[in-house]
Amino acid sequence: MDQTMVARAQDRMLRELTEFLAIPSVSTLPSHAADCRRAAEWLRTEFTRLGCPVVTLIEGKGHPVVWAEGPEVAGAPTVLIYGHYDVQPPDPLDEWVTPPFEPTVREGRLYARGAADDKGQVYCLMKAYEAVRDASGMPPLNVRFIIEGEEECGGSVIYDLLRAEPGRTRADAVLVCDMSYYAPGWPAVYTALRGMCYAEIAVRTLERDLHSGSYGGVAPNAIETLVRILAGLKDERGEIRIPGLYDAVEPPDDAELSTWKRLPFDEAAFLEEEVTGKALTGLTRYSVLERVWALPTLEIHGIRGGFTGEGAKTVIPAQATAKVSLRLVPGLEYQTVSRWLEEAVAKLAPSWADVRVIPLHGGDPVQVDVRRPAFEVLDEAFLEVAGRRAVLVRAGGSIPIVPELGLAGAPVILTGIGLPDDGLHSPNEKLDLHQLWTGITIFARFFERLAATARPQG
Amino acid sequence: MDQTMVARAQDRMLRELTEFLAIPSVSTLPSHAADCRRAAEWLRTEFTRLGCPVVTLIEGKGHPVVWAEGPEVAGAPTVLIYGHYDVQPPDPLDEWVTPPFEPTVREGRLYARGAADDKGQVYCLMKAYEAVRDASGMPPLNVRFIIEGEEECGGSVIYDLLRAEPGRTRADAVLVCDMSYYAPGWPAVYTALRGMCYAEIAVRTLERDLHSGSYGGVAPNAIETLVRILAGLKDERGEIRIPGLYDAVEPPDDAELSTWKRLPFDEAAFLEEEVTGKALTGLTRYSVLERVWALPTLEIHGIRGGFTGEGAKTVIPAQATAKVSLRLVPGLEYQTVSRWLEEAVAKLAPSWADVRVIPLHGGDPVQVDVRRPAFEVLDEAFLEVAGRRAVLVRAGGSIPIVPELGLAGAPVILTGIGLPDDGLHSPNEKLDLHQLWTGITIFARFFERLAATARPQG
Repeated sequence: MDQTMVARAQDRMLRELTEFLAIPSVSTLPSHAADCRRAAEWLRTEFTRLGCPVVTLIEGKGHPVVWAEGPEVAGAPTVLIYGHYDVQPPDPLDEWVTPPFEPTVREGRLYARGAADDKGQVYCLMKAYEAVRDASGMPPLNVRFIIEGEEECGGSVIYDLLRAEPGRTRADAVLVCDMSYYAPGWPAVYTALRGMCYAEIAVRTLERDLHSGSYGGVAPNAIETLVRILAGLKDERGEIRIPGLYDAVEPPDDAELSTWKRLPFDEAAFLEEEVTGKALTGLTRYSVLERVWALPTLEIHGIRGGFTGEGAKTVIPAQATAKVSLRLVPGLEYQTVSRWLEEAVAKLAPSWADVRVIPLHGGDPVQVDVRRPAFEVLDEAFLEVAGRRAVLVRAGGSIPIVPELGLAGAPVILTGIGLPDDGLHSPNEKLDLHQLWTGITIFARFFERLAATARPQG
Repeated sequence: MDQTMVARAQDRMLRELTEFLAIPSVSTLPSHAADCRRAAEWLRTEFTRLGCPVVTLIEGKGHPVVWAEGPEVAGAPTVLIYGHYDVQPPDPLDEWVTPPFEPTVREGRLYARGAADDKGQVYCLMKAYEAVRDASGMPPLNVRFIIEGEEECGGSVIYDLLRAEPGRTRADAVLVCDMSYYAPGWPAVYTALRGMCYAEIAVRTLERDLHSGSYGGVAPNAIETLVRILAGLKDERGEIRIPGLYDAVEPPDDAELSTWKRLPFDEAAFLEEEVTGKALTGLTRYSVLERVWALPTLEIHGIRGGFTGEGAKTVIPAQATAKVSLRLVPGLEYQTVSRWLEEAVAKLAPSWADVRVIPLHGGDPVQVDVRRPAFEVLDEAFLEVAGRRAVLVRAGGSIPIVPELGLAGAPVILTGIGLPDDGLHSPNEKLDLHQLWTGITIFARFFERLAATARPQG
């Protein structure tokens, strides 16, 4: 297998990926349920074309999990490849240069919702497997693809599957390719992911909206109530006001901290090119990498209440809601923090308001032991194709399924071909095509190298 | 003219009013511009049928003003009748028992957007004039109707008209029938209206939305920034944090305060039936009537930012906006308060956020001298038909055009046939039909009695 094979197939592959990305498989929006199924069907067809003798859509109360098994290669190791075919909602739509579900190449980048998170990366792994198989005429090792459709919405179909059939996902290594390089030219392997506690805070103060002329000054305003609760959950310097939260955090050890200090990090460029703001905020007594990787955060994702149309309406709103989440680091468990959040909101809620905290989804933080042999194999593939070994970093994001994937004892390799400026969850999400083509070769080499190792005890 | 005439015509009148209310003339929404025109055209037709020799739609940069003049009655006084045919937006739609623009009678009440504010009241005045004319075979006095289409959106067409042609609206009395009884059985005349300062606060902290996993804890969140600004504009006890605001307020005099103390006021019923909340909030060291009538207020009418769809999206929002207004009492001028609001927001805005205050509309507060003879004439009509003289109250609401209508020196009578629980600006707005039928007779008697007085100097 060499890179020229990949280069020759680029046009075809771009067409295929474009087809996949054009399906608006937004899992959080019920109106897109049929699109999620279309994306799953698209994968079923492609896995069949890839020569997988077993391809199944595993159904549950939500979007199906796509399960595909490559042909059996006796004596060869088994890799379980996790990914997801669902994508984040594309709004705000008016900020996209080209529509989110009309994939478009500009300056070597493929712009579309899901380009990097995670359809483009799922596709990369499929083509890496195809490339190895085509090069040698036969698959070098056993692969199992488990591609879910609920990563972005916290559905339970994949969890139910893993719990009901623990044997199905037994493997020698689990590959989760939903991450990014640390920086262009700097491949990365992740030692930890933050967990998540996502909830909606709903406030009602009146049975109906009121005229602010007649009742302004005496009627409790639901937006004002919500605003005070939100302002009370975090102070101006970025400290979350949930008692016990910071005490429970297990800080990174000195070795990890000193590794991070040696990483190239240009704060000015980070602010300007990635964050696109005028200043970095939060607990500024910690470094940026510590704030993003090793500290919990509380963010408000959305807020809505009262009259939000054009023009003016003089209403005292009866209700208002906000969506918030905490990111969790080692030491903070989802269920505990979920309860703490509820208690903190209850304490801030005035007696005359009906305030509810509705948990939407969550997951515990993850730590990975990267001293297992499979990591070294991947590292060599990175060195060979990308010219550099992977750096060991953490991620601020969350992939709630990761702890479950590792339950059977196989090493879980968290890595990916994205770049930090891919704009995941943002308008104009993209994938650099250079990363895709290189990535296909990297993982093809990883499969070949892994097949060449002695099969470990699974 | 007696009440049996009105009673005989009720079915026809209900049909006519239903037709008027069914037109969704929402002036703040550009998508309803054609409906506003339809409502104006409906009035044009009706005024023509009423025998007005002059009926004009006066055009400007917005929705037209409907102008109608009754036949000239030499030597008789002239009444200028102000009203508006535009209505508030009907949302939240799902809280309406029957659709806002499908007028429906339930238990003697007519439910529709605009039933009380103000189409039903405009219609009441038209029918009062019709009743008097039909009873005596000829109009008893001179009427001028000036019915605008921008009361709810702060348009300028009527202002431009009043300034361009001050002679047109010269009258012996101005009747603004856009208010309500103090309570069922208690007709009211208003001595003051609050003014208004309505603005949008728009915050941007980033060029684009970001993934809260990758950037949570370091990227400035636009909703969080907006929430802190809003929380900072008013303290928890309801005190507005704009320096100088309360110092500038001219408090009501002792006579007025003692009148208010004697008014029947059942705070528990007010809370339960009108406010529909669990407690009254605001500056509780003042009475409810003082808070609503004699103190400025700051209310948040709407807020929007980030992801507000169903489910979960883990985004750090780049922008957020809120709509707010201050109600202004004597001593507080719109332009001054607008500047103060801008300064207060600027002071609360962090340096790294782009925060703008966009004034949407406003008007100064109003005080009315109710010792002029026309008030006594109306009072006798109330006593005769409703069985009680009008109580002198204030209103918390605003009708920005009122000061302009009084500029030529005629007394401006602020009154109306609504009831406090009509639900203006709320779902399930209604007009009690008893109030409508009685109201037609009251104003018919007012016209007859006014015609019988010696014509004052106009």
